[in-house]
Amino acid sequence: MSERPSPPSRERSAYARYLSFRTRWMDNDQFGHLNNALYYSFFDSAVNTTLIDEFGFDPNSDASVYYVVETGCSFHAGVAFPGIVEVGVRVARLGSSSASYEIGVFSQGAELAAATGRFVHVMVDRETERPVPIPGEHRAHFERVYGVS
Amino acid sequence: MSERPSPPSRERSAYARYLSFRTRWMDNDQFGHLNNALYYSFFDSAVNTTLIDEFGFDPNSDASVYYVVETGCSFHAGVAFPGIVEVGVRVARLGSSSASYEIGVFSQGAELAAATGRFVHVMVDRETERPVPIPGEHRAHFERVYGVS
Amino acid sequence: MSERPSPPSRERSAYARYLSFRTRWMDNDQFGHLNNALYYSFFDSAVNTTLIDEFGFDPNSDASVYYVVETGCSFHAGVAFPGIVEVGVRVARLGSSSASYEIGVFSQGAELAAATGRFVHVMVDRETERPVPIPGEHRAHFERVYGVS
Amino acid sequence: MSERPSPPSRERSAYARYLSFRTRWMDNDQFGHLNNALYYSFFDSAVNTTLIDEFGFDPNSDASVYYVVETGCSFHAGVAFPGIVEVGVRVARLGSSSASYEIGVFSQGAELAAATGRFVHVMVDRETERPVPIPGEHRAHFERVYGVS
Repeated sequence: MSERPSPPSRERSAYARYLSFRTRWMDNDQFGHLNNALYYSFFDSAVNTTLIDEFGFDPNSDASVYYVVETGCSFHAGVAFPGIVEVGVRVARLGSSSASYEIGVFSQGAELAAATGRFVHVMVDRETERPVPIPGEHRAHFERVYGVS
Repeated sequence: MSERPSPPSRERSAYARYLSFRTRWMDNDQFGHLNNALYYSFFDSAVNTTLIDEFGFDPNSDASVYYVVETGCSFHAGVAFPGIVEVGVRVARLGSSSASYEIGVFSQGAELAAATGRFVHVMVDRETERPVPIPGEHRAHFERVYGVS
Repeated sequence: MSERPSPPSRERSAYARYLSFRTRWMDNDQFGHLNNALYYSFFDSAVNTTLIDEFGFDPNSDASVYYVVETGCSFHAGVAFPGIVEVGVRVARLGSSSASYEIGVFSQGAELAAATGRFVHVMVDRETERPVPIPGEHRAHFERVYGVS
Repeated sequence: MSERPSPPSRERSAYARYLSFRTRWMDNDQFGHLNNALYYSFFDSAVNTTLIDEFGFDPNSDASVYYVVETGCSFHAGVAFPGIVEVGVRVARLGSSSASYEIGVFSQGAELAAATGRFVHVMVDRETERPVPIPGEHRAHFERVYGVS
């Protein structure tokens, strides 16, 4: 219960769903690798693309939206522009108001993730910014897309 | 000669080569469209990806590198995450040390560019940062990839 | 009238108002200088900070907002993290619906701008996205802050 | 020893050293707050600015450089453009090759951090990318600037 969770897997097979992103010239820092902060941009981009394209989530008008409350990442190997990254996403835990994602960022075709991370979303009311339950419609999409309920 | 050049075309057929980029959540500004500065990131990412993948350019070790000396962009329509953008590139003029690119940024499948711009590269010596002639090997790639010489 | 305008000045004295920005590690590209696209982020950040702090503009709720329709930049010298940049802004022309800014980006304390650019805002209705006149209240602020009317 | 460490403090007094960063228009996402990934850019920018300005670290030429191996952040409250953020840094643990930083990101003048995080640097040889001991000269700067040894 209060145990520290095991770290996200570096294995390709651990992730339920993948999206590919072409890197950009400005992603590289002066050491010639992707800047560490940008991995988190892959996290929220992969998660939100799926919410919008698969769940029907509309960040502009839905009454409830997802806020990021906690993230973390371990960096195992470098990735560099002009490579393409494959971002694998799984849902480790679906709570009443929260979804805890695990994410692996892979160089195209690589077997082991270059970086692995966690990303926790909480659904909040857009106006009050207080947590609200994830609606049944979204839960059905979590089941369908990520296999969690 | 000293005439102001005609603006880059919004037509798909005007561009010699295309690369697609998946947008990222943080690309959108608070009006819900891609931030204007990011279009320039598509410019240099498309140009540099081709230099590296097609010309064999190595930004880390080549003795001469390309510096950006002038850019510009006209914004015709909005593009938004989670869309995919298609970035068309042509070379409008190849000088002794410089390459003047024209670029169209299209929403996936759109007939007219959402934004059109210019991007001027000058080849410089990595140490002195002074202009040097574009080598014959690169000129051959400009001919092959972009049809200019 | 239809003449090409003279380029923005590199002189410090040419700009009406300055804001300083601390650079960030990820601003540098792998050549160790600020990425070209980021200069445009200084442009809209300096302009919008003044609109919000001095004009009382609220991008979240005002019925009319400013859209960027055209930008351009010439790069004269490199700037690098961890430097501080001073962004000078003047208004070159105030139209019925548009404001044409000129901008100089200076390394801290430098006499000549490292980059100079143009940035054109058009006021549009938030819903229709069609141009609307800049209201008198904003025009008074343009007069007070930038000395144009 | 193998206990999970207590989370970084939200108190202003917990941090040894502060740097201020002006936010940028494109930092805000479409919910009108700073994008979560950007907080990590404040982390590495504050840490690296101090390494360069206070330690004499030269990321372009030093034989050993710092790589980011692990980061994490908890988000407690929103921060928005055009605000200024104050980034507090302390060193929680200085190992043989690693420095574990804790960081608080504060809205200007706020008593409690809007976000708190961890940031772990490992010193590596630039060529082999293998860990090497942090040199005595840097350890003296860690003592002087952050009060750790």
